[in-house]
Amino acid sequence: MRIAVLGTGMVGQSLAGGLAERGHEVVVGTRDPATSLARTDPGGFGTWAGTHPAVGVARFAEATVDADLVVNALPGEASVAGVGAATVADGTIVLDVANPLDAGHGMPPTLFVANTDSLAEQLQRTFPALRVVKSLNTMTAPLMVTPRELADGDFSTFVCGDDDEAKALVTGLLTDLGHRDVIDLGDITAARGVEAMMLVWLRLWGVVGSARFTYKIVR
Amino acid sequence: MRIAVLGTGMVGQSLAGGLAERGHEVVVGTRDPATSLARTDPGGFGTWAGTHPAVGVARFAEATVDADLVVNALPGEASVAGVGAATVADGTIVLDVANPLDAGHGMPPTLFVANTDSLAEQLQRTFPALRVVKSLNTMTAPLMVTPRELADGDFSTFVCGDDDEAKALVTGLLTDLGHRDVIDLGDITAARGVEAMMLVWLRLWGVVGSARFTYKIVR
Repeated sequence: MRIAVLGTGMVGQSLAGGLAERGHEVVVGTRDPATSLARTDPGGFGTWAGTHPAVGVARFAEATVDADLVVNALPGEASVAGVGAATVADGTIVLDVANPLDAGHGMPPTLFVANTDSLAEQLQRTFPALRVVKSLNTMTAPLMVTPRELADGDFSTFVCGDDDEAKALVTGLLTDLGHRDVIDLGDITAARGVEAMMLVWLRLWGVVGSARFTYKIVR
Repeated sequence: MRIAVLGTGMVGQSLAGGLAERGHEVVVGTRDPATSLARTDPGGFGTWAGTHPAVGVARFAEATVDADLVVNALPGEASVAGVGAATVADGTIVLDVANPLDAGHGMPPTLFVANTDSLAEQLQRTFPALRVVKSLNTMTAPLMVTPRELADGDFSTFVCGDDDEAKALVTGLLTDLGHRDVIDLGDITAARGVEAMMLVWLRLWGVVGSARFTYKIVR
C-alpha cells in the first residue's frame, strides 16, 4: 500500500519505519520538511530520516497524494488542523492513533475531549468524506509495529469506526504486523472508551516503570 | 472482619455472599430492609437473602456500626446519598466498586462524572474523614469474589486511594479472594481512569457476548 504518515514524532517515526519494513511505500507528511529534517538531535526526525532512506518526506498535502491509507500520528491537539492541511481525498481511510491529551493542565493529565465525544469523532465529523478508524492508541509506538516483542503479542488491539471496509483494511494491516487479537468495538463512538484508557495508561506508565505494556482482554 | 455492604443489587449480593463465604461477618445495608426482602423474584434480594442466612440485613446506618470495612455497591448515582445515609464512622475504610453510569441518556452509555473528576473523588471529597479505595469496578460482580473462575485469575485488578493503610487492607482482602495481580495506581484521582474503562467494558460486553471478561496489564 501507499501510506502517508502524518507526524514526525516518535509515533510517526515508529509507524513509518515499521510499515516501510513490511514493504509498504511510506511518505511522512509534515508541515515543513526542511524544519523537520533539520532536527538532528537524538530522536529528532532528521536523525531518524537519515537512517531510513526508503521513507519519503513531504509537505502534508503532497504526502497524501494517491495514498491508500493516511495515518494520523500527530499530537492530539494538532490532529484536526493537520488532517485538514493534508487535504486528504474523499473516501480515504484514515487510521487515527492519536490521543487527546491536554498537556497544558499539569498533573494528573486529562483529556481535552472525553466521555460524550472523542478525538476520532471530531475528525470524522470535521471530515465526513473520510473513513476514520481508531486504533493502536492504547500502546507505545514501538509495540504498534512490533507487537510480538511483548509477550509474543499476547494482548489485545482495538479498532472502531463507522466503515466496515475501512476497519477490515486496518485489521488486515495490524494482523500483518503481528497483532494477534484485534477486537472490533463497533462504530467511531467507541473511541471515547479507548481514548479514555490513556488515563489509566499514564498511571501504569509510572507503576510499571516502562512504556512496554498494554491491555489484554481476558475472556 | 466485620463488613457492611451497601446495596442489594447483583453487585451487593455477589460481594456479600463471597465475603461471607471467606469467613467475614457481613451485613448488607439498605434503605429499607422490609422492601428489599420483599423482592422475591429471581435475582431479587429477598430470594437471595433466603439462601444466605449467614448474611445480615439492616438499614444503612445500622449496617455500618462497628464495621471494619464498608463496601459501596450502590448504583453510581445513589452512592453519595447512600454513603451519607450510612453515617459511616470517621476513619472507616470504604471500598468503592461503583461506576458513575449515566443511565438516563440512552446509547452509547456515558458517565455522569469523568476525565477531570470521578465518583470515588466525589465520595472522598464529600466524606473527607473516610478512607476511600476504588477497586473491582472493572469486572462483573461474580469475578470480584471468585476471580479464579476466569483464566485461573490471570488478569489485573486495580486499586487506588489516598490512604496507604486502607489500600493495604483492601489489597489483602482481594488477594485472599484469589486476585493474583493487584496493581496500585496511586492516589484517588486514578479512579478517573478505571471508571472510564467502563466505556470500553460496555462495548466489549456486546462483542464478547458475556460479562465474564476483564483487563490484564501485559508487561
